[in-house]
Amino acid sequence: MDSPSSLKESMLYSILAGGKRLRPTLLLMTIDAFDQDSKLGIDVACAVEMIHTYSLIHDDLPSMDDDDFRRGSLTNHKIYGEALAILAGDGLLTHAFEVISKSECLDSHSKVDLISQLAKASGPEGMVGGQVADLEGEGKSLTIEALENIHKKKTGALLSFSIYAGAKIAGGTKEQMNHLAQFAKLLGLAFQIQDDILDIEGDETKIGKPIGSDVQNNKSTYPHLLTMDGAKEQLLKVVKEAKSHLYKANVNHEWLEHFTDYMISRDH
Amino acid sequence: MDSPSSLKESMLYSILAGGKRLRPTLLLMTIDAFDQDSKLGIDVACAVEMIHTYSLIHDDLPSMDDDDFRRGSLTNHKIYGEALAILAGDGLLTHAFEVISKSECLDSHSKVDLISQLAKASGPEGMVGGQVADLEGEGKSLTIEALENIHKKKTGALLSFSIYAGAKIAGGTKEQMNHLAQFAKLLGLAFQIQDDILDIEGDETKIGKPIGSDVQNNKSTYPHLLTMDGAKEQLLKVVKEAKSHLYKANVNHEWLEHFTDYMISRDH
Repeated sequence: MDSPSSLKESMLYSILAGGKRLRPTLLLMTIDAFDQDSKLGIDVACAVEMIHTYSLIHDDLPSMDDDDFRRGSLTNHKIYGEALAILAGDGLLTHAFEVISKSECLDSHSKVDLISQLAKASGPEGMVGGQVADLEGEGKSLTIEALENIHKKKTGALLSFSIYAGAKIAGGTKEQMNHLAQFAKLLGLAFQIQDDILDIEGDETKIGKPIGSDVQNNKSTYPHLLTMDGAKEQLLKVVKEAKSHLYKANVNHEWLEHFTDYMISRDH
Repeated sequence: MDSPSSLKESMLYSILAGGKRLRPTLLLMTIDAFDQDSKLGIDVACAVEMIHTYSLIHDDLPSMDDDDFRRGSLTNHKIYGEALAILAGDGLLTHAFEVISKSECLDSHSKVDLISQLAKASGPEGMVGGQVADLEGEGKSLTIEALENIHKKKTGALLSFSIYAGAKIAGGTKEQMNHLAQFAKLLGLAFQIQDDILDIEGDETKIGKPIGSDVQNNKSTYPHLLTMDGAKEQLLKVVKEAKSHLYKANVNHEWLEHFTDYMISRDH
């Protein structure tokens, strides 16, 4: 790529910083659940991870969450400075769309649909809107509905896109897509409840950022709104419902079910 | 659009702040030069202006050029704060790709090509890379080649895309596309030389930002490298060559020629 080496380095720093790769894994697993070749989705999977990574770089900035650590390492702006961190994020976001448009595994019609859905999931109506709502909710006492609406956009939209993209690439029927959409929505909710639980009960060395940062930032969380026991009960309920939709989708659900169990048993 | 009202307001503030609309005008004019209906390009024209606007919002941030005024009004972050300004930029960039993907005027194959070219022109190899090189060049004494390389990416790539998109939508031949690509490249160069001249000789109330900010920011400029007379001479030479390619493209060149003359006679 013909671009300044500092920019490439800053983009790669965050892309290669590790992380759980939940979104690309989910996308490829969903293709696999239809007995299709998961390689068909590799470019879209990379694009989703680029967009997720850009969102972390921008969320960590001093004017946003002001985090010094992410995944156990210094955040992008702590290494490269704010200007380059903002531009690395912009670069990853933009390049994600180029990667899908140039995929050799998909026809033009699929690419347009996936680009459209990815932009919607990550733009003002999706992830970017969720981050704004999240920042505006700090220090306020939110209802459980308001909290769910924030997470649905901030993290849920991109998780849902990952499953949608996998099913679309694999040629799922409308009914299958509908059940997987419900599964995705509930999986995203379970993910967030577990995140909130880990922010209180987690192990700092495993999470890679300080425990209690949500409390410090005055963020509403599920344990805060429902008590810790209530949050754990809600998590089990949501997971049960998620799985029921997964079974109804009539796909090889084994790996997606394991994935769901991992999501709620993970310690980071 | 179902997104936080503050985000919508911040995005609209910069989109509606005026500006010359050079890129969308150029795109629509190019379609017109082929005797095709310029309405075919309206969605792509909007997308280009969204991407240009996002780049201005991010460029103006305190960690970048730290500008308080743009187009005679306060910059986005001076009104909405840094966090919302960054997110408004992210939102505009993302939404641009959604707008093209949903255009009702274009087939899927054209959309994929235009998205790919737009992402390349505005991403790490294009505009974002140019902004990094520009920031890194501050305070350094650049050669004329290094300066041209920065501008080719930072402003030239998106201007070139606008003309490419218009010609592509209108169904230009390969030879026409080649001549228009040369025309676009030289027009972008002329644009930048005139910008540098205006930074010294312009009228602050018309430009909408302080005169001499390039000098203050220690930026290399054409008058600085070539003297003011040399820069003006270079401008005329570049414009003459640009026009020669425009004539060879064998289109109705009248409006594009007027546009070129306007570019070098403009006072803001």
